[in-house]
Amino acid sequence: MKSIRSFVFTLLLFLSLGLCAQQTEHPCLILTKQVVEQIRPNLGTLPVFDNTVQEMQRKIDRIMDLPIDLPQPKDAGGGYSHEQHKRNYTAIYQAGVLYQLKGDKKYAEYVKQMLFAYAELYPTLPLHPVQKSNYRGRLFWQGLNESVWLVNVSQGYDCVYNYLTEKEREQIETGLFRPMIRFFREENRKTFARIHNHGTWAVAAVGMISYVMGDTDMVEQSLYGPDKDGKGGFMKQIDQLFSPDGYFEEGPYYQRYSLQPFLMFAQAVDNNEPERKIFEYKDGVLLKAVTTLLQLTEQNGQFFHLNDALDKTWHTNELAWGVDIAYAKTGNKQLLSIAREQGSVVISEAGWKTAQDMALAEPFVHRTLIVRDGPDGDQGGIGVLRDGKGKDEVAVVMKYTSHGMGHGHFDKLSVSYYDNDREILQDYGAARFLNIEPKNGGHYLPENDSFCKHTISHNTVTVDGKSHFNYDMKLSSEHAPDFYGFVDTDEVKMVSAKDKYAVAGVEMHRTVWLLRHPLFDRPVTVDIFRITSAEKHRYDLPFYFLGHLMRTNYPYEAFTTQRALLGESNGYQHLWVEAKGKAENNLIATTFLNGNRFYTISSLADDQTEVYLNRIGGTDPDFNLRHEPAVMLRREEAANHTFVNVIEIHGEYNPRMEYTLDPYATVQSIRLVSDTADYTVAEIGTQSGKSLRIYLSNNNSDAEATHTFEGYSWKGVCSIQ
Amino acid sequence: MKSIRSFVFTLLLFLSLGLCAQQTEHPCLILTKQVVEQIRPNLGTLPVFDNTVQEMQRKIDRIMDLPIDLPQPKDAGGGYSHEQHKRNYTAIYQAGVLYQLKGDKKYAEYVKQMLFAYAELYPTLPLHPVQKSNYRGRLFWQGLNESVWLVNVSQGYDCVYNYLTEKEREQIETGLFRPMIRFFREENRKTFARIHNHGTWAVAAVGMISYVMGDTDMVEQSLYGPDKDGKGGFMKQIDQLFSPDGYFEEGPYYQRYSLQPFLMFAQAVDNNEPERKIFEYKDGVLLKAVTTLLQLTEQNGQFFHLNDALDKTWHTNELAWGVDIAYAKTGNKQLLSIAREQGSVVISEAGWKTAQDMALAEPFVHRTLIVRDGPDGDQGGIGVLRDGKGKDEVAVVMKYTSHGMGHGHFDKLSVSYYDNDREILQDYGAARFLNIEPKNGGHYLPENDSFCKHTISHNTVTVDGKSHFNYDMKLSSEHAPDFYGFVDTDEVKMVSAKDKYAVAGVEMHRTVWLLRHPLFDRPVTVDIFRITSAEKHRYDLPFYFLGHLMRTNYPYEAFTTQRALLGESNGYQHLWVEAKGKAENNLIATTFLNGNRFYTISSLADDQTEVYLNRIGGTDPDFNLRHEPAVMLRREEAANHTFVNVIEIHGEYNPRMEYTLDPYATVQSIRLVSDTADYTVAEIGTQSGKSLRIYLSNNNSDAEATHTFEGYSWKGVCSIQ
Repeated sequence: MKSIRSFVFTLLLFLSLGLCAQQTEHPCLILTKQVVEQIRPNLGTLPVFDNTVQEMQRKIDRIMDLPIDLPQPKDAGGGYSHEQHKRNYTAIYQAGVLYQLKGDKKYAEYVKQMLFAYAELYPTLPLHPVQKSNYRGRLFWQGLNESVWLVNVSQGYDCVYNYLTEKEREQIETGLFRPMIRFFREENRKTFARIHNHGTWAVAAVGMISYVMGDTDMVEQSLYGPDKDGKGGFMKQIDQLFSPDGYFEEGPYYQRYSLQPFLMFAQAVDNNEPERKIFEYKDGVLLKAVTTLLQLTEQNGQFFHLNDALDKTWHTNELAWGVDIAYAKTGNKQLLSIAREQGSVVISEAGWKTAQDMALAEPFVHRTLIVRDGPDGDQGGIGVLRDGKGKDEVAVVMKYTSHGMGHGHFDKLSVSYYDNDREILQDYGAARFLNIEPKNGGHYLPENDSFCKHTISHNTVTVDGKSHFNYDMKLSSEHAPDFYGFVDTDEVKMVSAKDKYAVAGVEMHRTVWLLRHPLFDRPVTVDIFRITSAEKHRYDLPFYFLGHLMRTNYPYEAFTTQRALLGESNGYQHLWVEAKGKAENNLIATTFLNGNRFYTISSLADDQTEVYLNRIGGTDPDFNLRHEPAVMLRREEAANHTFVNVIEIHGEYNPRMEYTLDPYATVQSIRLVSDTADYTVAEIGTQSGKSLRIYLSNNNSDAEATHTFEGYSWKGVCSIQ
Repeated sequence: MKSIRSFVFTLLLFLSLGLCAQQTEHPCLILTKQVVEQIRPNLGTLPVFDNTVQEMQRKIDRIMDLPIDLPQPKDAGGGYSHEQHKRNYTAIYQAGVLYQLKGDKKYAEYVKQMLFAYAELYPTLPLHPVQKSNYRGRLFWQGLNESVWLVNVSQGYDCVYNYLTEKEREQIETGLFRPMIRFFREENRKTFARIHNHGTWAVAAVGMISYVMGDTDMVEQSLYGPDKDGKGGFMKQIDQLFSPDGYFEEGPYYQRYSLQPFLMFAQAVDNNEPERKIFEYKDGVLLKAVTTLLQLTEQNGQFFHLNDALDKTWHTNELAWGVDIAYAKTGNKQLLSIAREQGSVVISEAGWKTAQDMALAEPFVHRTLIVRDGPDGDQGGIGVLRDGKGKDEVAVVMKYTSHGMGHGHFDKLSVSYYDNDREILQDYGAARFLNIEPKNGGHYLPENDSFCKHTISHNTVTVDGKSHFNYDMKLSSEHAPDFYGFVDTDEVKMVSAKDKYAVAGVEMHRTVWLLRHPLFDRPVTVDIFRITSAEKHRYDLPFYFLGHLMRTNYPYEAFTTQRALLGESNGYQHLWVEAKGKAENNLIATTFLNGNRFYTISSLADDQTEVYLNRIGGTDPDFNLRHEPAVMLRREEAANHTFVNVIEIHGEYNPRMEYTLDPYATVQSIRLVSDTADYTVAEIGTQSGKSLRIYLSNNNSDAEATHTFEGYSWKGVCSIQ
């Protein structure tokens, strides 16, 4: 085994003799000599490319008027020295690129002076004085920023490489880049070898500067780990951190961020050693990661709020890398419409091609799909059901992924729901005001741990008031739910998953449909959450709706003069109980208005089901949470229990023309016709006196299987009649 | 006196011999024969006019395919019979207009058949069965709708007048219009004679159909009251309901609605009897009313939420009448940009001219201004201070109007504040979900009376927990605050008013500035609220801020596990107390984030000033209120007291580019240097160690007066140094 590996490495070493420093062809990393020659005579012909260059030039020209400023590292994120060293790496990168494109030596000279200054400063630096991270840098309080710095600066250096004399290069490499490589490779070997986003930035940084310097051995270490044994390094990271469908386990918000070093370094590898076919690696997973990420958004490109997530859209700058590179590699014209929305391109061959082809843009089409999680795709996933277009695009998201590392939440089988350009049933995402110093220095807020990560803050079932896996991340990381079924036809879209790990002794099986049906004007969502257990438990299922409550079909006691909390721990302490009620006629229906549309959540309720109207904001001394509402179904003392919910969009509120249509729901009744280990059959009755039935096989999701229930036969996991 | 009046009326009668029925020139009301002849050959040349006509035709052609439907009157607003009779008047109006423009007899025939049907139905109708109004109609549950019906139908009738034979006209007039006139003129004489919006619709309806029928006497009664003595009728309504500045006392939301019958009927008068110079009456107040209304909006055209108000913008259809007529009469090209936003025009000479000139549109300019209230302009008013353009347009609104009749609120000297395309310090407006049946039938909600009208729901001072005028509308209608001062220069904009009626024995003097000052990056608002009283009282001053709380500079006790109400009555029962604190260093500063900007309200606080963080939503069993926050200053046991507040816009939150600027306020201290009957002098200290002083004369607002305080002299009511 070991000898085969050596052979492979020797072979790779042989292949890598094409590395750019030897060839003295510079730039070689992202921008290449060849593409610079192609771009230069054609500058001024592609508006989006020119705008990007001009914007860059406008900024850097202003900065170059100021004296070079390398403050002694002192501050954490947001502080002066931190922000100035960030500004410097951008300036080095941009000046380098402009030197290549414009040929004006003042830019090269600026880069040279900057690098000289850093080569002088860097060797004198101890570890950063702010001790908040285990992975401290020298310029920055955390090593992560140090690697981002080097990823950018290596590109600037590459651009002026041939402008410098050999002596100048030696001065810079000896003073700056060699010590930096040593910092990552030796002093932080653990991070360098780690299968983690911090590791990716580290190997990308070391790999890229090593390409520029022609250090093939260090490139190898970046790709295959410090021992070049493939146990660490970039290739292993691609293997481990992306599922075969291109999903990054922390969720879309962090995938957006993590993708950047993968794509930058992969582009550098591809430019220098195309024979590695890096973009084809693992069935082209790096390119899939781009399109998968783009699919994990609502209609306006906002990433679903899974796990720790803030508001971010595909317009974000770091995603330009993904979009441009994926377009250049795949020719998928839908990516061009996103590039157009981004309004800028990467200064590279991929960006140039994207700019050239902009006019060919096709609308980006959101699809109904499932995305598998886990390196081998067997650790659950995400189901996205969609119908409609534009403002009428409905998206139902079901999350049945693995935990998602440090940014994961304990919300197996949770759903969220979008319509009319808005989030309607929300996933709260993270409690954080990024970069806002007065809010805990811009870091995650305590309520992120005490509320947002807990099960009760999500649209899924909490058992006995305890979060899934009892909030134990280690345990939660060991198990993911099991995918059960997926249907995608014009009329019926469905995703189904089961979990037997999150709560000991309790099996949960949730199936969500998005249906087009003649009884409903708009797509209707049906949600069957089936719980089986030998023991009795309390089951809480909240829906965090956004909008103004319009009507309930149930009487309730409203706590109008005093207000208390839903509970004391596990996130319950962050919920005020505003009202509490019980169903009449076995149906709990809550109607709310969001934008110009009404929504009703109708739920089957037996005589023992209670309904709570809650509001986020309890135990929130610093006002860190958004005070938004939820309706919660509670079933005490149940062993087996099945929740059946229907979510309708109905009517229209038009204040300009002063009319209102259909403020009342269509659903009038929900009945469980049968609910066994084999089949769940639910009947939904409507205002018109008609009804539809949902037939679901609980133990065979084979699309070809034939099922029979009380004389009715159908093929496949479910049927709607 | 009487004989002079008779003479005038004889003269007017003589002048009015030009009425259209005699001339047999039809149409004569809004659309005239002359303008139809001008439009017909030019149809197809003006997009906005053609779109309006085509949209009309598209709708009416579809309706004309259905059988005529005149249901027996049965339902209240929103119900079938109500809505169908509304659809019918629109159909009669539109078909009439299309007959004139297109000459296709099918439209005239449709109007004829409709009118025949109504002429048969109407005489058989008793009063409407729904008894919710003192002013019941026959077709509608309230007479108001009946007059709106006739205003529209009279235009349709006018358009087909010459298509009908004399016998057909007699049949229609005898069966329908004469009984309807009798309904308004005889059976509801009180409303017909009343100086009130219902009266305006009634006289407009009667006056317009009388023009068509050539009934000069009834036109006179519409203009001068049932006794033609000028005590009632349209002219008196213009006199009484509009201030000399064109302000309608109920506030902008209702002014928008009320304006329509005024302008329609005035247009009819002007077309038939131009010699009355109706648009010049009372110094052209009807046209001023249009531009004044347009000024009472924030940057996107949303009307300020004064009194009972919902969200409405100048895009609303009924305002097209105002904009088109005012443009045709004044040639003010700023109105064209609003007409363009409206996207449709009135089918009339004014609409045609507006459409013709659309390309000349100039941007509508929001001004700093004061608007006087009261028939003679001496019942207080509204001050609007503005700075900046587009998204940076800041508007500070101070309300010191008269009560505003049934839709008025008890909020003397209240302020609201806009920036960045948003309402930042809100006036709650009304608690109502218009036309949403499940919310109290779409009517005003109980909380409108119990919260929204009360003083405590507004950004002004409540004394001893009681609303102004002790919530007595009759009393409140007798007094308005006194205007004190107004300044409008590039750097200093200011409005000031005093009230000594709202709370017995308490004088309130509020002055608000919008300043450009080198110590602040953006316009800064200063607010001095000076209270004098011989007795001790409790003073509560809330600010209903919209946004997420970021930071306070004061320690507070947060009620995180239990929550209680601020009080038991006068609106206090609708406020939860979330936290309570006290100032350190005599400054209370509350910073919040709204959109991408930070705002800080900094207030002078003596040792006895408490601060409350409240939230709307207590005692709200039906979830009718929006659960939004407020910060409230409370000073117990004070006789004289002066609140000094500074509202700053600062910094930027940019989640896309991931940076934050200036999340901390500039103001560091506020000091009252002096506060006497003569002068109030406040000093505002900033982060940079610098300060500015506000000098205010409390008893002489003459712009030419010279003042001296401790050796510093200035001219005019105030000075900033």
